[in-house]
Amino acid sequence: MFNNFVYQNPVKVIFGKGQIAQLDKQLPKEAKILLTYGGGSIFKNGVYEQVKQALKGRQVIEFGGIEANPTYETLMKAVEIGKKENIDFLLAVGGGSVLDGTKFIAAAIPYEGDDAWQLVTGKARIKTAIPLGAVLTLPATGSEMNFFAVISRKETHQKKGMGNPLLYPVFSVLDPETTYSLPQHQVANGIADAFTHVMEQYMTYPVNAEIQDRMAESTLQTLIAVAPKTLENPTDYEARANFMWAATVALNGFMGVGVPQDWATHEIGHELTAFHGIDHGRTLATVLPHLMRIKKDEKRGKLIQYAQRVWNLHGTDDELVEGAIQKTIDFYESLGVPTKASAYGVGHETIEKIVQRFKDNNVKLGERGDITPDVVGEILEMSIA
Amino acid sequence: MFNNFVYQNPVKVIFGKGQIAQLDKQLPKEAKILLTYGGGSIFKNGVYEQVKQALKGRQVIEFGGIEANPTYETLMKAVEIGKKENIDFLLAVGGGSVLDGTKFIAAAIPYEGDDAWQLVTGKARIKTAIPLGAVLTLPATGSEMNFFAVISRKETHQKKGMGNPLLYPVFSVLDPETTYSLPQHQVANGIADAFTHVMEQYMTYPVNAEIQDRMAESTLQTLIAVAPKTLENPTDYEARANFMWAATVALNGFMGVGVPQDWATHEIGHELTAFHGIDHGRTLATVLPHLMRIKKDEKRGKLIQYAQRVWNLHGTDDELVEGAIQKTIDFYESLGVPTKASAYGVGHETIEKIVQRFKDNNVKLGERGDITPDVVGEILEMSIA
Repeated sequence: MFNNFVYQNPVKVIFGKGQIAQLDKQLPKEAKILLTYGGGSIFKNGVYEQVKQALKGRQVIEFGGIEANPTYETLMKAVEIGKKENIDFLLAVGGGSVLDGTKFIAAAIPYEGDDAWQLVTGKARIKTAIPLGAVLTLPATGSEMNFFAVISRKETHQKKGMGNPLLYPVFSVLDPETTYSLPQHQVANGIADAFTHVMEQYMTYPVNAEIQDRMAESTLQTLIAVAPKTLENPTDYEARANFMWAATVALNGFMGVGVPQDWATHEIGHELTAFHGIDHGRTLATVLPHLMRIKKDEKRGKLIQYAQRVWNLHGTDDELVEGAIQKTIDFYESLGVPTKASAYGVGHETIEKIVQRFKDNNVKLGERGDITPDVVGEILEMSIA
Repeated sequence: MFNNFVYQNPVKVIFGKGQIAQLDKQLPKEAKILLTYGGGSIFKNGVYEQVKQALKGRQVIEFGGIEANPTYETLMKAVEIGKKENIDFLLAVGGGSVLDGTKFIAAAIPYEGDDAWQLVTGKARIKTAIPLGAVLTLPATGSEMNFFAVISRKETHQKKGMGNPLLYPVFSVLDPETTYSLPQHQVANGIADAFTHVMEQYMTYPVNAEIQDRMAESTLQTLIAVAPKTLENPTDYEARANFMWAATVALNGFMGVGVPQDWATHEIGHELTAFHGIDHGRTLATVLPHLMRIKKDEKRGKLIQYAQRVWNLHGTDDELVEGAIQKTIDFYESLGVPTKASAYGVGHETIEKIVQRFKDNNVKLGERGDITPDVVGEILEMSIA
């Protein structure tokens, strides 16, 4: 049976065409706003103009240049501005990296300790945060409707997750039209990311949580159906809207209540990004299929259910297990996302480094805590074999 | 394509065994609490004891006797106590009727107008409300995670829905064990109610809202699978927990974002309760199948999808439409819930009164507004034929 749980998600989602104009109503009237964004794509796709229009007459300071896999080093510059300028609201405009980075900024501005990195590692507790809102331009991470953030540190090749209910966005604007100009590979990465978020919460062992399982299956089926459409025709509003909402639902906490969760794929993937700079969504595709194969006995019940309900496969249990893994590989590959880490030049040396780091930190991953550093090594060796 | 939407649901759900003990942490320390409940079942099933234990050392005033289909007349007595005693938190312990009634009390205590019934009819606006929490003991209405309430008025045979975001419970405790002692017919009513809530949001016309449709289908499939189990074995925790969570999800707003919704079955059902006192869940079963039949051309696309995805039917489109209606009838009947209003003695006279009332108020129901009073008459005539 699924476990007791507490569920609460206060984020106000404002979804649809032209909804950036709603910003004016959502933002506190007298707030001094720090507008955060990334590498400048919002200047090309018209989003910046729409946001500025909605912010007319307000006190706004801008902070651009938050990179993919947002770094502590960059974000601390925004924190400094935030402190100096007495910012009282953050508005993140961009994809998951900008949103995640802005969550860190929100926690770090009011933080009074010396070393804000401790907010990421969990050594310091987040006691308060500047409120933040978001305009999402890349469906992928789910950051727009959860309280998680993943922050990297260049200096030490670290990539760490943090989370706190104080970091829920107050609101998130999701306008599918803002995503029309995304490069194909980013859309593919986003689909891979969202798909894997669901799998982390689903591909464990059965606890007969009917609603949670079917929600997960619904989201997988939606992503599978919508992927070829939205890749082929980026301005198909319907396909893009379904993708965008699916990616949000994939990690807003709802399908994961009370059920075992894995997240080993993400932990391992973060290391591949930390050492090789591989796009987040792409790292996941190089890990999950091999993890599924190595853990196929432990995940057998769910692999069979997934094969039947998501992929409509028929056959013996062994055939279903194998089919489940193969379909997962085929799906990632259909997005143009490789399922081998060797495609990015990852070799034995990197694997050794990752295994060693996990050993040093005594890390045990997975829903049963049985993915030891050596098992991580096996998974990654399979990914470069 | 599905419409633009705004979604926000701040309710904190505390789900599982033994969770009533969490009340102490959830309630504001110094609050003067009005504890509301129904006909006294909470004294027999141990819930009252658990609640009192959790409330130890607090200022609590009790108000019992909120009836099924809670009446304005009864609730105004609680409002009077609330005003006189300066109550600042309401704790509803019971099923949907107690929760709905308590939402009205929450709005009416701070209301300064002469006629609190206007809060129900919408003639007066709800500007503020006393915060409320809930301990749910009957899965059915979804009131524990939404801001709606349905209130009856004896004097005028009226039953009306009201809603306002100020009426979201701050928290709701859902312990499946509190439902073990429910009479079978109440469990059956609850299943019928939750099932129909989903149908109201789903059985309209397709707008290719993949997540919303699949969420609806997931919830229907869960209810269908769990119904015989939980009716046969009321103390099967797993079945009861899946039912309880499904009933909450069925009406927490999530599956209904941006999609057309019907709600004619509820509007008509409310009239059957108002005139004949039929249990709410039971009225729905006497309306929906006939509404589906009369509106089968308008609802054709969704009837076919429902037949295929929820009931795994195969055949021609016409066979699927017919199968969809028949399966719905069979499902209600399998719960011991009749699908004919004649089973309750409803006759032509009542139908005429209902049609007349809808005519007087110029009511047009359904997702297209094409269920005129005369169509309501047709539906109800089919239900007594």
